[in-house]
Amino acid sequence: MEKKLVSSLREAIELSGLKSGMSVSFHHHLRNGDYTLNAVMAEIANLGIKDLTLNASSLFDTHAALEDHIRNHVVRKINTNYMSQGLGRRISEGLMDEPVDFRTHGGRPRDISLGITPIDVAFIAAPTADCAGNCSGKYGPSACGSLGYAFPDAMYAKKVIVITDNLVSYPMQGWSIPEIYVDYVVKVDAIGNPQGIVSGTTRITRDPVGLIMAETAVNVIRHSGLLKDGFSFQTGAGGASLAAASFLKDVMLKENIRGSFASGGITGYLVDMLNAGCFESLMDVQCFDLKAVESIRTNPRHQEISAMQYASPAAASAVVDKLDVVILGATEIDTDFNVNVHTDSNGCIMGGSGGHSDTAAGAKLSMIIAPLFRARLPIVTDHVSCVSTPGRDIDVLVTQRGVAVNPKNEELMLRLKDAGLPVVDIRQLKETAERITGVPAGIKRGERTVANVIYRDGTLIDTIKSI
Amino acid sequence: MEKKLVSSLREAIELSGLKSGMSVSFHHHLRNGDYTLNAVMAEIANLGIKDLTLNASSLFDTHAALEDHIRNHVVRKINTNYMSQGLGRRISEGLMDEPVDFRTHGGRPRDISLGITPIDVAFIAAPTADCAGNCSGKYGPSACGSLGYAFPDAMYAKKVIVITDNLVSYPMQGWSIPEIYVDYVVKVDAIGNPQGIVSGTTRITRDPVGLIMAETAVNVIRHSGLLKDGFSFQTGAGGASLAAASFLKDVMLKENIRGSFASGGITGYLVDMLNAGCFESLMDVQCFDLKAVESIRTNPRHQEISAMQYASPAAASAVVDKLDVVILGATEIDTDFNVNVHTDSNGCIMGGSGGHSDTAAGAKLSMIIAPLFRARLPIVTDHVSCVSTPGRDIDVLVTQRGVAVNPKNEELMLRLKDAGLPVVDIRQLKETAERITGVPAGIKRGERTVANVIYRDGTLIDTIKSI
Repeated sequence: MEKKLVSSLREAIELSGLKSGMSVSFHHHLRNGDYTLNAVMAEIANLGIKDLTLNASSLFDTHAALEDHIRNHVVRKINTNYMSQGLGRRISEGLMDEPVDFRTHGGRPRDISLGITPIDVAFIAAPTADCAGNCSGKYGPSACGSLGYAFPDAMYAKKVIVITDNLVSYPMQGWSIPEIYVDYVVKVDAIGNPQGIVSGTTRITRDPVGLIMAETAVNVIRHSGLLKDGFSFQTGAGGASLAAASFLKDVMLKENIRGSFASGGITGYLVDMLNAGCFESLMDVQCFDLKAVESIRTNPRHQEISAMQYASPAAASAVVDKLDVVILGATEIDTDFNVNVHTDSNGCIMGGSGGHSDTAAGAKLSMIIAPLFRARLPIVTDHVSCVSTPGRDIDVLVTQRGVAVNPKNEELMLRLKDAGLPVVDIRQLKETAERITGVPAGIKRGERTVANVIYRDGTLIDTIKSI
Repeated sequence: MEKKLVSSLREAIELSGLKSGMSVSFHHHLRNGDYTLNAVMAEIANLGIKDLTLNASSLFDTHAALEDHIRNHVVRKINTNYMSQGLGRRISEGLMDEPVDFRTHGGRPRDISLGITPIDVAFIAAPTADCAGNCSGKYGPSACGSLGYAFPDAMYAKKVIVITDNLVSYPMQGWSIPEIYVDYVVKVDAIGNPQGIVSGTTRITRDPVGLIMAETAVNVIRHSGLLKDGFSFQTGAGGASLAAASFLKDVMLKENIRGSFASGGITGYLVDMLNAGCFESLMDVQCFDLKAVESIRTNPRHQEISAMQYASPAAASAVVDKLDVVILGATEIDTDFNVNVHTDSNGCIMGGSGGHSDTAAGAKLSMIIAPLFRARLPIVTDHVSCVSTPGRDIDVLVTQRGVAVNPKNEELMLRLKDAGLPVVDIRQLKETAERITGVPAGIKRGERTVANVIYRDGTLIDTIKSI
């Protein structure tokens, strides 16, 4: 085990055998507080290694230094599931010679496990580890909770390097990723800035439009026929989604409904629902706030899941396929219910699917919550500028001005109409918005493909053009 | 998930696509109480499937029905790590056309993970499971504790069938093996007889010879230089080994030594040592008694490990390689310190390596405890009739008449002599025994090879001939 613990990132990289043209990977649980990707890439650049494929489960603005590594040909290709707007804009402007391949949180482990996107060296930022590489995100000064997205990297990469700022005696208690996968361990001063890793608290919206949408969303769930004992649920960390979770909790407690599980990125609101008895279990692939981190550390019913178990179509089964209801966001949705979460109103990359299309495909009821317009631009269009999630997987759009049901889900349409909910045709929502904002000018797209959008089953679902 | 839960073993076998000539696997945590291997093999025989390779981590007398399946050509080949004497005798008599391949508890997962012994269909007896196949040995009427040996089967078999008598709601809490590996789930009335699965209690020896050996063993450990803070330890479930653990506990408490971990098959004695603060953690690949099962269920410091993490030479690292001291048994040991745990004094198969050679290879101090003679037959011989563990990995033999140190370990020899322990040449122990029992007649071996003994690195270390 002495052999695994090396003195520096540089030594670990050298021992791993990393060479120009190979593939390196990173997970994103430290989010915008992550120090490790930049530190590793700086060492790689110093070593003169070039033309790498970078496979990162997500990329944040803190990784802006990648721009230089791309210009200097240290990074030739990017595979990721999400990219925040700083780097996204540069990519959209044509920074890279090769298009970025966007996957989903389920598609990434699928393609890693099938050998479609092989990883030569995986770098795992671990809030706690021992000298053999047993590691966890639950403990330590940089605790992030679940390490779900790092599992495929650990299991399938040719070499695995664990980077930690909290090295403990062997064997650590409560590892998530076992030593059997880990080749080298590096102790550094800090793997991240705790303030950027997780929010202190995630907060529900105070915006009246958001609150109306949240209330409507919960009414849709109530009348969907799915809200009964055994109910399973996922929602994001956006303000309106959190408000919906909060309202849903009240309904479940009032009606004494005991759900089975909530899944996905976990917030304190879902922890509250677990503790209140709304759910038997949380299935956690990523923690969004400190309350979630504390809960996964202390409550055995708050369970860590790998990215494979969360959403991989190559797994024998995955959690997303047992979901009753998922609440999702959209930057655009078109009259065929196709959803865009990759690009903004200028066609510029500012996101990615993450688990969007995985949960939409799996859940019995996939709901988009979105305001009718943002910054005077309608959300509903004739054709989304990028298809992130196909309309066939979306059941309902909830806005502040009404609820549009995908015509393929006739039963839901009838149920919601019977319940007196404001069901409207999605084209009517588009017209309502356009009456207020005017018809927006079309986006002028460039000619070059700057990104491919790869659906969870490996097929190309759309491309993103330069701006 | 409905698709996974099928109505019968027969349906699961049919859906798995099992055909003649393929390979099936079983784990042995239900030990002599296991019902599942017999039930599965009976269904396979009923289906007319023949010429199977049976890969079982261990086989017990409760699996005597295998004799018929071998005679009827349902089973053509056996790969296992241990075989108790009922079936062992039949194999030694020449029951099978092909030799049994014996591996070790580390070599088996190695060869499964490397594709050397591929598994077509793995059958996992699970004391608790949900309809997606998340499963654990910690809970349920047939609780056995750790499912460590079942992990490679689950992870590498082409199809995985979970058999449970305690089907719980999805998602179960505290699974060991996740749903991502499981193709089918079958609910049966009982997977085993709890009285045969684990002992109610394992007990230390009351035999004065055993107590003397245990006391000497602990004195060897005390004076080895290894018994200090961070100490790690493994011992078996034999009466003298347990007595040694009990005496060691007293020494550690008296001298205020805080060890790091104990590993392997876990008994209540090691649980007591954990709870008394002798160790920080238990690393459990198999539970031997009810106290161990209760502990792994309730104490987070009592940690389940897979067979890979326990001992696989193909893993990036394994627990056995961090051991300070292991106490092991022997049916024979020769003057070169080679140990036999496969055959009895008649050359008849009655055991197997299990983790014997894995821990011997990994531990800094590998100790054999054995009486000088059993049933008037000396334990020390010129040449063991079967080499299970090579003498290079054995450091010391403890008997009631003295301690023999392998000459390769000069430092230990000096330490023990300095401490006044009764250190003698191993040839002297042989002569002492033979003075009492007489020189035993050599075993008359048959001509046919009935078993191969495959060392943990995949090399053939010995063969066993028919009797």
